[in-house]
Amino acid sequence: MRDACRVEPGTKANLTGRPTGDRLGVEKGRAQEELARLTDRLSVLHGRLHAERSRSVLLVLQGLDASGKDGTIRRVFTGLNPQGCDVESFNVPTTSEAAHDFLWRIHSALPARGDIGIFNRSHYEDVTAAYVIGAIDDRQRKRRYEHINAFEKMLVDEGTSVVKVFLHVGRDEQRARLQSRLDDPEKRWKFDRSDLDTRAKWEEYARLYDAALTATSTPWAPWYVVPADHKWVSGVAAASILVHTIEQLDPKIPEPKGHLDGILIDP
Amino acid sequence: MRDACRVEPGTKANLTGRPTGDRLGVEKGRAQEELARLTDRLSVLHGRLHAERSRSVLLVLQGLDASGKDGTIRRVFTGLNPQGCDVESFNVPTTSEAAHDFLWRIHSALPARGDIGIFNRSHYEDVTAAYVIGAIDDRQRKRRYEHINAFEKMLVDEGTSVVKVFLHVGRDEQRARLQSRLDDPEKRWKFDRSDLDTRAKWEEYARLYDAALTATSTPWAPWYVVPADHKWVSGVAAASILVHTIEQLDPKIPEPKGHLDGILIDP
Repeated sequence: MRDACRVEPGTKANLTGRPTGDRLGVEKGRAQEELARLTDRLSVLHGRLHAERSRSVLLVLQGLDASGKDGTIRRVFTGLNPQGCDVESFNVPTTSEAAHDFLWRIHSALPARGDIGIFNRSHYEDVTAAYVIGAIDDRQRKRRYEHINAFEKMLVDEGTSVVKVFLHVGRDEQRARLQSRLDDPEKRWKFDRSDLDTRAKWEEYARLYDAALTATSTPWAPWYVVPADHKWVSGVAAASILVHTIEQLDPKIPEPKGHLDGILIDP
Repeated sequence: MRDACRVEPGTKANLTGRPTGDRLGVEKGRAQEELARLTDRLSVLHGRLHAERSRSVLLVLQGLDASGKDGTIRRVFTGLNPQGCDVESFNVPTTSEAAHDFLWRIHSALPARGDIGIFNRSHYEDVTAAYVIGAIDDRQRKRRYEHINAFEKMLVDEGTSVVKVFLHVGRDEQRARLQSRLDDPEKRWKFDRSDLDTRAKWEEYARLYDAALTATSTPWAPWYVVPADHKWVSGVAAASILVHTIEQLDPKIPEPKGHLDGILIDP
């Protein structure tokens, strides 16, 4: 499942060639059970990672509007101890954020040692949306790929595993989801007219993500393109990729601090 | 349950008069069920608070070593969407934190509108532990009570509800818990020799918390002293106090942005 999603470093991301409706071998009837197994495992690994306090894990979640970023976070991380698990959402930069380089706000939001950090959108907005609105030109965009790769290499070398997941939703499925936000009174508040503008630029976004994923899928921080037309598939796939990464770290409950044999607590 | 725990503003906290083994009418056999009901309700309220994005809630958790702060966070908040729920732990101030006033690091860690923030220890360390280690004198300690009250009043007026819970563990139960950290190989890594020093100063800490809770239980941010000898009691009590506070806020799913009738998403 992981291998099928991985963008092999040095190869094209080829988004249009990856089916958004793929089920990755997951049966719908067993998806919930499989997700429960993965989140239980994630919970155990998170406990050890947190106790160990020497490495951290960053999950970068990107995807177009209605690709299921919020839902994936809810499905994968509800059930984890919130102590040591932190979600950061990146929106349009604030005045203070815009007054710094594009990695400044990213850097300050990274998880501490022992923690899992989840980025709902990230510095990848700064090589996609930033270009669409004309904030950067082609030269700056390509230069930023290099800066991102160097920055992520530093993070990995210094103890932060970087897991990057692109939720790959199809054009038809996005239409259906946006329409349901409009039609369902319970979801209507989520709809923003700017979603229409973004949808109108579908082709441009697809091209920019293809270029960004191709340029920034590195051996130290590869991209995973997760088919996102079925929410139960993207949940299981994201959880599986994350669990695999932390399994590789093999975090362990630390040794006691000093010799503690024979100590009796005073009554 | 809430009323029994509340330190009525203007009255003494009277910690020694409050039994740490109290069950607050909770039956052990039904505690898990009751907690599940409360956390489900908390989850619904949290979703509305987050959608509304106009008010925030801060839970301040204080208590001596082994009073169950970490466990309470795990029991009450696991199951909440981590997006919009943030835990901050305050340890010995870093060099940069110590180079500022004591409320500086507190202020910058507060929850954003729509979020629930949980403080695992807080600015109340700065009127208890800070005094024990000699970092402040009596005059400074008492002056800080006033600063805390003014700061929390500002927070409440500006839209952050402040819920303060003191986990009140008994001296015997603390001994048993610390001893079990020493004796259980799975828990041993949690034990720190400095826990012994703190325990040796039990009377002084008790006196300082009594004074701090008395001075800072205000109509806008009252303290709740939760009996903590039974973990199942403190979990239910903390959840119940928090749920009640958010019920009072009565957060609502917001109205749609602008007129959205009749919009059809482009195929």
